[in-house]
Amino acid sequence: MATLAETSCSPVSFAPGGDHTVVNLDANANAAPTAAVLSAVVEAMTNGAGNPSSGHLAGDLARGIVERTRDSVVALLEGAFEDGVVFTSGCTEGNNTVLRGMVGHTAQTLFVSTVEHASVLKVAQRLAVEFAEVRFVRVDADGVIDLGELEVGLQGSPDRSLISIQTANSETGVLQPVAAIADLARRYGAIYHADAAQSFGKIRTILGRGHGPDVITLSGHKLHAPAGTGAIVSADAEIEYAPLIVGGDQEHGRRAGTQSVPLLAGLAAACEQRGCTLDADVAMMSMLRDRLEFGIRTLLPWTVVNGVASPRLPNASNIRFVGVDGMALVANLDAEGILASQGSACSSRRPEPSHVLTAMGLSEADAFSSVRFSVSPLNTLEEIDHAVQIIVAAATRLRGGL
Amino acid sequence: MATLAETSCSPVSFAPGGDHTVVNLDANANAAPTAAVLSAVVEAMTNGAGNPSSGHLAGDLARGIVERTRDSVVALLEGAFEDGVVFTSGCTEGNNTVLRGMVGHTAQTLFVSTVEHASVLKVAQRLAVEFAEVRFVRVDADGVIDLGELEVGLQGSPDRSLISIQTANSETGVLQPVAAIADLARRYGAIYHADAAQSFGKIRTILGRGHGPDVITLSGHKLHAPAGTGAIVSADAEIEYAPLIVGGDQEHGRRAGTQSVPLLAGLAAACEQRGCTLDADVAMMSMLRDRLEFGIRTLLPWTVVNGVASPRLPNASNIRFVGVDGMALVANLDAEGILASQGSACSSRRPEPSHVLTAMGLSEADAFSSVRFSVSPLNTLEEIDHAVQIIVAAATRLRGGL
Repeated sequence: MATLAETSCSPVSFAPGGDHTVVNLDANANAAPTAAVLSAVVEAMTNGAGNPSSGHLAGDLARGIVERTRDSVVALLEGAFEDGVVFTSGCTEGNNTVLRGMVGHTAQTLFVSTVEHASVLKVAQRLAVEFAEVRFVRVDADGVIDLGELEVGLQGSPDRSLISIQTANSETGVLQPVAAIADLARRYGAIYHADAAQSFGKIRTILGRGHGPDVITLSGHKLHAPAGTGAIVSADAEIEYAPLIVGGDQEHGRRAGTQSVPLLAGLAAACEQRGCTLDADVAMMSMLRDRLEFGIRTLLPWTVVNGVASPRLPNASNIRFVGVDGMALVANLDAEGILASQGSACSSRRPEPSHVLTAMGLSEADAFSSVRFSVSPLNTLEEIDHAVQIIVAAATRLRGGL
Repeated sequence: MATLAETSCSPVSFAPGGDHTVVNLDANANAAPTAAVLSAVVEAMTNGAGNPSSGHLAGDLARGIVERTRDSVVALLEGAFEDGVVFTSGCTEGNNTVLRGMVGHTAQTLFVSTVEHASVLKVAQRLAVEFAEVRFVRVDADGVIDLGELEVGLQGSPDRSLISIQTANSETGVLQPVAAIADLARRYGAIYHADAAQSFGKIRTILGRGHGPDVITLSGHKLHAPAGTGAIVSADAEIEYAPLIVGGDQEHGRRAGTQSVPLLAGLAAACEQRGCTLDADVAMMSMLRDRLEFGIRTLLPWTVVNGVASPRLPNASNIRFVGVDGMALVANLDAEGILASQGSACSSRRPEPSHVLTAMGLSEADAFSSVRFSVSPLNTLEEIDHAVQIIVAAATRLRGGL
């Protein structure tokens, strides 16, 4: 356990069961809390902060933490403002809220890409069953959406549309052409929502003004905050959506339920820390990711990086180990203390090929042979070099066994 | 700050800003975390537990915590089972889920009492606007629902009904006749949901079999867990509701989104601790509450305890300071370090009279003169005696000033 006396910027090691050889290459599923985050959570649990809706001292303390967290989220974005931040339990709730709260209310047609997270795709499917016009926009072999298809769709939709297209894919890290989508949205009077769960705090994100999404959703646990926090962030006050959860007047009536002050304190610490070190963190992640890819590709030239021709997040790599059962590879790596995954964690326990990879044109077999690796600045060069050795040996062994 | 080396059963003090004179008599808004809860949260944040949906070691650790928490919730209830537990971000989300997920699906008519929490009443109001038949069941002057009115309503509803009536009121602590409601539900083929946010872990709760609710909802932060956790708990596998939040397959597809493992670890610790000490905690809370009421009533005989003729939670007291502005009293107490509230925290910042008290027949003036006090086992006799002095002096002063 990290001691609380550590300075808030020193990283904690990721050490399940006290075993220091575990290497987390699955940061897109869960990025371990830093010491600063841990410290903020503990402080919020012990300083007497209460229910942020209470009118008294303990309420004031809690409200101070909630508002500081709002500021810290806004500071990591361009074009966001404090009143545009609504806290949720995570990006899944945020996506459900925005899509359900707009389609059928302020928007009549919904455009989503075929590579969205399940929390967008499943809502879209429910909306399609209920009443809404839902259009699925395809991606090319590199995982990038077909802007022409989106534009033709928008031209054919006389009513106001909602576009929900992610900033970055959780499995491949492929970035979507956010500025071009925003420009289309502006030209055709559509609202542009982007699931930014994976990109928040990892790349520069601009909201609104035709340069970026009008509204984004995010999760804290991709950025070293504990799971259970998230936000919907709007570019301006005209972005409206019906609340998904009603009750108390929290979050200006846009999301009822007592906010989790300890978790929000953790999110604030995570955002503030990333804000201080964004450039260095991005450089570190890119370097670690590139070293991992270079090592694997050099030693196993028969591997392919899915989406490599596209701009990608600095921390993610999705590698196709041709002829290898990816699930067996993940299990083998797990046994040796290397954490990786197939697909996103939210669907990783389902024995189906990745919908993201098949949407990019991969066969089921190719999708099943692919493994996602994702790093965070808490990883070290030594971990990467150690992981490359283990990955190469395991993949070689599994391929030989076919 | 409590040191982590404290034994898990020793209570932490509630000390905003290091000021040890603050007395939290607003535990129904937020019960401060115990040392055991803090310790569990910290451990879960530092032991390498990751995303519970991940297939690897870090996922296994996380899943272990989630399942242990499910067990710990079940152990505090009678008639619940592990697969009947679905984790949410809190009781507000749980209430939204159950009501929205049943009415229009498995139930056609909704019965709610007029003293429910806003997260039940507002959903009921939305359902009424949309399509559903919603009936509001009145309460008597002591805050107890009119069983006859409910029965007549059920007789007149040929389709399946959902009854949503709380176990205990958050403002007055008044207990509803849960067994009698369950019996009516059984006789008329209705489903009985109870918002158990305030009673969970404070009184014995039986689910199902005609003895209690078929399904309850709860929040962790009323029981010393951090805010941000909650659960929907069903008595049997036949209780079905459409998910409010869709996406990943978490919680058996009944609630999508990554569970907050640190918060659930805190909830498990809170439940396990309460399970060990339930009788002693109830005795302690009753003793503290009774001492508070006795002190105030003795020194200020013109005060009235709202709902005193009804069975109540052991920890709550709602006192009418006739002729005193309750909001001014709360502010005066706050200035002297005594935390209390008017109404529930979720609506305490709205200058409206309590809907609970006006439903009991109080005038607006009487409702505005009432203040809620709620204790936890972390309070001490000395705190109560100190608080009585401050409360009596402040109320006397304010009454004199009229």
